[in-house]
Amino acid sequence: MLSVAILGASGYTGMELLRILAVHPEVEVSAVFSRQHKGASVVEVFPALAGYCDKLTMSDPEAFAKVEADAVFCCLPHGASQEVVPTLLKQGRMVIDLSADFRFKDAAVYNAWYGAHKAPGLLKDAVYGLPELFRPMIKGARFVANPGCYPTGAALALAPLAKRRVINMMSGHGSVIIDSKSGVSGAGRGAVVDYLFSEVSGGFKAYNIGSHRHTPEIEQTLSEVAGIAMSVIFTPHLLPVSRGILTTAYAGIMGAWATGDIHKLYAGFYADEPFVRVLPPGKFPDISHVRGSNYCDIGVYCDENKKRAVIVSVIDNLVKGASGQAVQNMNIMAGFAEDAGLRTPPMAV
Amino acid sequence: MLSVAILGASGYTGMELLRILAVHPEVEVSAVFSRQHKGASVVEVFPALAGYCDKLTMSDPEAFAKVEADAVFCCLPHGASQEVVPTLLKQGRMVIDLSADFRFKDAAVYNAWYGAHKAPGLLKDAVYGLPELFRPMIKGARFVANPGCYPTGAALALAPLAKRRVINMMSGHGSVIIDSKSGVSGAGRGAVVDYLFSEVSGGFKAYNIGSHRHTPEIEQTLSEVAGIAMSVIFTPHLLPVSRGILTTAYAGIMGAWATGDIHKLYAGFYADEPFVRVLPPGKFPDISHVRGSNYCDIGVYCDENKKRAVIVSVIDNLVKGASGQAVQNMNIMAGFAEDAGLRTPPMAV
Amino acid sequence: MLSVAILGASGYTGMELLRILAVHPEVEVSAVFSRQHKGASVVEVFPALAGYCDKLTMSDPEAFAKVEADAVFCCLPHGASQEVVPTLLKQGRMVIDLSADFRFKDAAVYNAWYGAHKAPGLLKDAVYGLPELFRPMIKGARFVANPGCYPTGAALALAPLAKRRVINMMSGHGSVIIDSKSGVSGAGRGAVVDYLFSEVSGGFKAYNIGSHRHTPEIEQTLSEVAGIAMSVIFTPHLLPVSRGILTTAYAGIMGAWATGDIHKLYAGFYADEPFVRVLPPGKFPDISHVRGSNYCDIGVYCDENKKRAVIVSVIDNLVKGASGQAVQNMNIMAGFAEDAGLRTPPMAV
Amino acid sequence: MLSVAILGASGYTGMELLRILAVHPEVEVSAVFSRQHKGASVVEVFPALAGYCDKLTMSDPEAFAKVEADAVFCCLPHGASQEVVPTLLKQGRMVIDLSADFRFKDAAVYNAWYGAHKAPGLLKDAVYGLPELFRPMIKGARFVANPGCYPTGAALALAPLAKRRVINMMSGHGSVIIDSKSGVSGAGRGAVVDYLFSEVSGGFKAYNIGSHRHTPEIEQTLSEVAGIAMSVIFTPHLLPVSRGILTTAYAGIMGAWATGDIHKLYAGFYADEPFVRVLPPGKFPDISHVRGSNYCDIGVYCDENKKRAVIVSVIDNLVKGASGQAVQNMNIMAGFAEDAGLRTPPMAV
Repeated sequence: MLSVAILGASGYTGMELLRILAVHPEVEVSAVFSRQHKGASVVEVFPALAGYCDKLTMSDPEAFAKVEADAVFCCLPHGASQEVVPTLLKQGRMVIDLSADFRFKDAAVYNAWYGAHKAPGLLKDAVYGLPELFRPMIKGARFVANPGCYPTGAALALAPLAKRRVINMMSGHGSVIIDSKSGVSGAGRGAVVDYLFSEVSGGFKAYNIGSHRHTPEIEQTLSEVAGIAMSVIFTPHLLPVSRGILTTAYAGIMGAWATGDIHKLYAGFYADEPFVRVLPPGKFPDISHVRGSNYCDIGVYCDENKKRAVIVSVIDNLVKGASGQAVQNMNIMAGFAEDAGLRTPPMAV
Repeated sequence: MLSVAILGASGYTGMELLRILAVHPEVEVSAVFSRQHKGASVVEVFPALAGYCDKLTMSDPEAFAKVEADAVFCCLPHGASQEVVPTLLKQGRMVIDLSADFRFKDAAVYNAWYGAHKAPGLLKDAVYGLPELFRPMIKGARFVANPGCYPTGAALALAPLAKRRVINMMSGHGSVIIDSKSGVSGAGRGAVVDYLFSEVSGGFKAYNIGSHRHTPEIEQTLSEVAGIAMSVIFTPHLLPVSRGILTTAYAGIMGAWATGDIHKLYAGFYADEPFVRVLPPGKFPDISHVRGSNYCDIGVYCDENKKRAVIVSVIDNLVKGASGQAVQNMNIMAGFAEDAGLRTPPMAV
Repeated sequence: MLSVAILGASGYTGMELLRILAVHPEVEVSAVFSRQHKGASVVEVFPALAGYCDKLTMSDPEAFAKVEADAVFCCLPHGASQEVVPTLLKQGRMVIDLSADFRFKDAAVYNAWYGAHKAPGLLKDAVYGLPELFRPMIKGARFVANPGCYPTGAALALAPLAKRRVINMMSGHGSVIIDSKSGVSGAGRGAVVDYLFSEVSGGFKAYNIGSHRHTPEIEQTLSEVAGIAMSVIFTPHLLPVSRGILTTAYAGIMGAWATGDIHKLYAGFYADEPFVRVLPPGKFPDISHVRGSNYCDIGVYCDENKKRAVIVSVIDNLVKGASGQAVQNMNIMAGFAEDAGLRTPPMAV
Repeated sequence: MLSVAILGASGYTGMELLRILAVHPEVEVSAVFSRQHKGASVVEVFPALAGYCDKLTMSDPEAFAKVEADAVFCCLPHGASQEVVPTLLKQGRMVIDLSADFRFKDAAVYNAWYGAHKAPGLLKDAVYGLPELFRPMIKGARFVANPGCYPTGAALALAPLAKRRVINMMSGHGSVIIDSKSGVSGAGRGAVVDYLFSEVSGGFKAYNIGSHRHTPEIEQTLSEVAGIAMSVIFTPHLLPVSRGILTTAYAGIMGAWATGDIHKLYAGFYADEPFVRVLPPGKFPDISHVRGSNYCDIGVYCDENKKRAVIVSVIDNLVKGASGQAVQNMNIMAGFAEDAGLRTPPMAV
């Protein structure tokens, strides 16, 4: 059994790790940490988990360095991760960091979008943990930066086109448009008026247009996959649901491609992936079809005349967009079956 | 491996059986039947289940008698079950019937509330499948009538008080009041204007006051547990959620009982139950805490002066209120671990 | 034109007053106050109201005493109202207070449930503003305590039975049970984790069982209507909707009453009321039918054998349960048409 | 008083017309027709409207030609309108048709997307009723084709750019992308499994990608405004809310435009419009801000480097997207104040 600990366990990604790991056959959660809830039992904070984590109590994060654990999931806000990860790595622990702190290769990009990085020297050591695109690097890694939720859905939607280099990047006006819609849990569990039920229910809006921090992360991944610099227009929206991200991606296409061709490209690209389901031509996914699961479902369309591909991907932002992908990464790092703990079917209704 | 079939597989209870059995270690689903969707693959009807049931196709229910299966879950509407169950039993199959057709001991009660029964002679053969109250009869049974959703939540809420005979039934004016609130999936998957999203969203109402068919089923169970005739006032309401039933039960109490005493009674009564979680005094359950799981969570309160106990129970109407309980019954009947296939934690968010 | 001011204008009751008064033919909003948003324009705080309140800016509440207004709506939390109301009354202003501070006749009751009152001498001056029950006292009053949301729905549901004295109060075990379900806006606009969208959506729970502060307010009103002391069991629940309270009230009945008799009693009692709609026998209300309006819809049922009446009432907690009723009170106090500003039909979908 | 009738009154657009006209100072609803509910009172079909339409009964649509009304709102499905409108026009009635039947100038376009038109000769007589773009033609018209819901939101979002001819249409790959998200009421009130609460709640999906019938309607309007042929990529999505459409429109831009320039263009274009609110730079609209009202709120952004404008518009699909706009058209046609009956503020919460 691998003993694992969770830092920042009282937020939604911590909750989701506890839910997933409760049925993981190879792992035991040995410690959980929470500043806000230190001293409380896990069951007090998450009553739904009674019967699964009954002996676990939230520890004071001040004592994180003394944790007895082979692997640590770090669910802290960006900025806070970089303060604890260096120590954990020095201690020889396996680290999966769910914040944005170690996702960028280039410290200048991080600094421009998030503020001055305190441990830039570690950026080169972190592997970007999107298994469908970077599995070989994750195998055997000791330190993984878990991707952002929007970047996961967007990269999986566009990677086959980027890799094949059929996206028209010539025109000056941004042929790649990523229109994403996320459930509210993506905003975290902080007490904020904007995310009160009465504010969100029955509503829908775009936010951070042209300025969302996931933009450079998406561009980094697509550029790496394509082997050339790619830029995107990215617009996030807030859906009145708890879970799920749907991304509608538009890309200008070079050459003569029909929907069937695009489908063939995608079906081939993801043929061996346990967590990507490419739908038949004419079918499009619903966020409810992946709820609670680690799947990314993808539907494709191509307008032959307007030379524009429309790709729709859905994920559960808390699972494939965060904690499920973190467990998938841990499974790969530790040599477990890649889907261990992740076989529960989606709950569509 | 036990081979099982599902009749009426394209409704919500069929969908839920498929979801649960997909991870059941002892069972293989060998056949599914649906009049409406015959010829379609399961994945076409339930895209969320892609990867789990890929080889299953909906068969024509006309051919039900030729099904190759050791056990059959019957998810047909009341009235339709009684037409197929006699054949299945004669063939020696294990039958778990999710309709109301075989829940009553007394055909006259069925006839009064549902219409003339066509197989009244079988009523005595069916075991009422509420394991927490009738487990010994379920063990070794070949034919189980799976309880209704409201009756499951109401009976588990009141059984300890009924068994202990502390409920004041003397007064002429109905001391037991059961105020229940159910999610919309309880109304089934039929195309009905009243259950359209736009009709239900943001709304809430009571319905069938004084006339809901689950009333006599609740009374039958409580009377059997108490050993005396018990009657109730039952008011169902329609919640704008997909899943979950919360029951607030009020009972006049004889003798001096405080909340702590009631809690002790309940904690003892359900001490060995794998699927009932009695909350500490002062805590009350939320339907989200049991979502997707087979749990029934119960919170208790007693007003010592007004001599009234208030018991709140929650279940997922599709799981403990239907398909999960059906699998629990099958596990008991077949000698499997009672929680086989049912260990997935609730998904509270 | 009556000039009115709103203290505590940035919460939901303030927002709702602004929405209603925007189309009131006799009133002009001259000033709004908000500690949290002082200096911001109303439109920044409530973008939906652009075009209606464009010149209004949130003032610092420190300056409340210098407000130029004939009438003041006080939307402060309980405890805060009692600090400003004495000054406003001394200045000769008409005051409608939406907090709990002046709802009780007996300071001891207030002190027991809310803490020590700082202006108990004013309690006798406040008229309890439930027009359907106390209209004569509201006419000509200068100071009205606007009822709580739950007490409004509960009192209107039970007043005809209480007035007629047919409720069985003999039995020791609390024959009156009030099971209420409220939308989330009733909890206010404060930043609280429990009311985040992801916490509430898809959930449902009871809370404050046996201890909710609206209990004594309900009892005070019913006792006054009945002319004898009445006590109740009151259980509030949190609905996953923004607006609306549905109350299911159960009362043991003395004498031979059928549903038709109860209906006749209610239809007569409320015959001249502009904002109470008694539904025909067999029909029950939905909170969506009164959404955004000042109506209280009521459906009735009586179990003749069990001698128990079941009354269901619905209101919009922000309108009839708060700001709409406050405007109705103002209309009565000022001699306007009672429904001025309140004629907008409900928005059911 | 103008006497008006509604054909197809039991759907959502009929309901909404009744709600709006209930407070219209110049109009009296004299007759309503419904095949499904003929003989029922309006209040039975729409209990929320009790007190507003108490004398109206749903008539048999067979008798539509004998209706006593100066003006008729036709809320029938496409295909059915063209069978009754010719008669109504011959009778000299003012007609506002909410179906797609008379929105196209070119019968060939209608035939290609909707099937063979039975009254193509009338197409030239219908005025396309989008007042912000075609007000002069609506004035004095007797026959208006009310725009579709998506086309209203999309056209208002893009018209200022189209009119100014700054949209880059040179590139072969479709620079205009319209990503729209609609509430469920847009799908009508028919009994369809796909729109059941349990199917939609918590979900989100794209549908009819590349094939939605509103595509040619959007293209017709933008082409007319621009004075050159314009084509678009249009992707509709289904939001889990009852009301509201948010459109995120992307357009490649020629020349040097910053967000401030775009804002100035829009603010000028809509300066005198009573129902368009252009938000300040940096602000974006929420569908909840226009709920129940006839407003279209618009927020703008421009990426100067990628030369791409992002425009976000929101409307209530049942009001500005259907019945409210129909009343606005009627007001213009009849010479009433354009906002008569439409002054009720939005209900954001």
